[in-house]
Amino acid sequence: MRILLATDGSPQARGAEALAEWLAYKLSAKLILLYVRDVRLLRGLEPLDLGALTIPLPVYRQELERVLTLKGEAILERLLKSAQEAGLTAEAILETGLPHEAILRHARGADLLVLGRSGEAHGGGFQGLGSTVDRVVRASPTPVVVAPMEPVELEGALLGYNASESAVRAMHTLTALARPLGLRVRVVSVHEDPTQAGSWALEAEAYLKDQGLQVEALALSGDPAEHLLALQEPTDLLALGAPVRRLVLGSTAEYVVRHAVGPVLTVR
Amino acid sequence: MRILLATDGSPQARGAEALAEWLAYKLSAKLILLYVRDVRLLRGLEPLDLGALTIPLPVYRQELERVLTLKGEAILERLLKSAQEAGLTAEAILETGLPHEAILRHARGADLLVLGRSGEAHGGGFQGLGSTVDRVVRASPTPVVVAPMEPVELEGALLGYNASESAVRAMHTLTALARPLGLRVRVVSVHEDPTQAGSWALEAEAYLKDQGLQVEALALSGDPAEHLLALQEPTDLLALGAPVRRLVLGSTAEYVVRHAVGPVLTVR
Repeated sequence: MRILLATDGSPQARGAEALAEWLAYKLSAKLILLYVRDVRLLRGLEPLDLGALTIPLPVYRQELERVLTLKGEAILERLLKSAQEAGLTAEAILETGLPHEAILRHARGADLLVLGRSGEAHGGGFQGLGSTVDRVVRASPTPVVVAPMEPVELEGALLGYNASESAVRAMHTLTALARPLGLRVRVVSVHEDPTQAGSWALEAEAYLKDQGLQVEALALSGDPAEHLLALQEPTDLLALGAPVRRLVLGSTAEYVVRHAVGPVLTVR
Repeated sequence: MRILLATDGSPQARGAEALAEWLAYKLSAKLILLYVRDVRLLRGLEPLDLGALTIPLPVYRQELERVLTLKGEAILERLLKSAQEAGLTAEAILETGLPHEAILRHARGADLLVLGRSGEAHGGGFQGLGSTVDRVVRASPTPVVVAPMEPVELEGALLGYNASESAVRAMHTLTALARPLGLRVRVVSVHEDPTQAGSWALEAEAYLKDQGLQVEALALSGDPAEHLLALQEPTDLLALGAPVRRLVLGSTAEYVVRHAVGPVLTVR
């Protein structure tokens, strides 16, 4: 198994860094570390906050590229060292490009992608979803875990299940994680018709139990996103399908990824 | 792991029955056996050939249902017995409905779906794809293996790879099968631009090698379907993405599933 961590080394990415390392350790997976030098910076198209680094503007492209390279190397070296101390097999990739494009390209060669909810372009007080994360979640062929800022060790899982194609995939992906991680799974099915909600919940419960997992199933009515957000503990991995229509992420998935207190696993 | 075998017990399904049992044995998976009493028959909407059973028409619905039930029970009993003799955990499901709808519903609760290329509605000489299989391949949220009529034990795998979302999923799914089955994988990437074909082939090769598989990569130009069909041995599992646009299966996937000499794994 290959876990890809995409990080810009910002404080907002620390939760993702810790979670990716923890998952790689628990799942005996190889950890791929990716830092992307943002080509938009090099082109000077968009002014971005470089965090601790202040450089006089206008700056020469070569100088900026050198600084970004040093920064990327330092971040990757820190992560490689930490992974090696944990006994993990790890590999670091440093490249230049549009971050979402580079992340999506490398996601093709990974079984799971982990990243933070927003990057350094936003300050630590930003509560929303970064544009890179938003694009990656909408387009990744590989399941994505969006981690909150605070590091966390998973203790349970919550599965939003409505029998849709992406929900089925989310259930299959979650199973592959929940079993080796020993996570107890709560299934949440929401529909105005309680018979429909109950039938979905039972369907998922039967599948998960048969895979040897400890399962509890809840059939509810109301707004699926609100229920999932209310039920998630910070140590729960919240798994749900992320269907995409006309390039726009479904409203439940988008809302949940933006507002969850813990890590969210989305599967298209 | 749960493997769903959908069968109507016809000679055309024997290859799928044998392959599903072999896969369940090799992968230590639970085998779910599904026989669907075709509701269209009971409604008398479409005349179908019942094979060895000849019944006078017009027939009463109850009588026909009783006959179909006996037939389904006999088929499931034969398969259950065979599975038990192989030491497998198996479960049989007999229900009434539209076959593709029932199969898709149960596919949600399985990790892999195995079925034959056509059913009893077609005689043994039929070379095409049955309408049930066609609908299932286009809509299954779970990877599908379409098996030819002749039973076969897999010895190798062939992966069509063009870095598309469904091709990435096919690569991930194939890895989970090829590793425990000990299959050597040949990657086939086809594009008019040899640089593009080569870059796809190398990308898949790197991923598969890193997963501990024995891999050979081929970069070719021309028609992807023709290359895949020419390279497949009857004992090769041919894996490819099956993208669906406006409810129509992509032409490469459709052509390959119709004409392959061995089993085909499609992933949407």
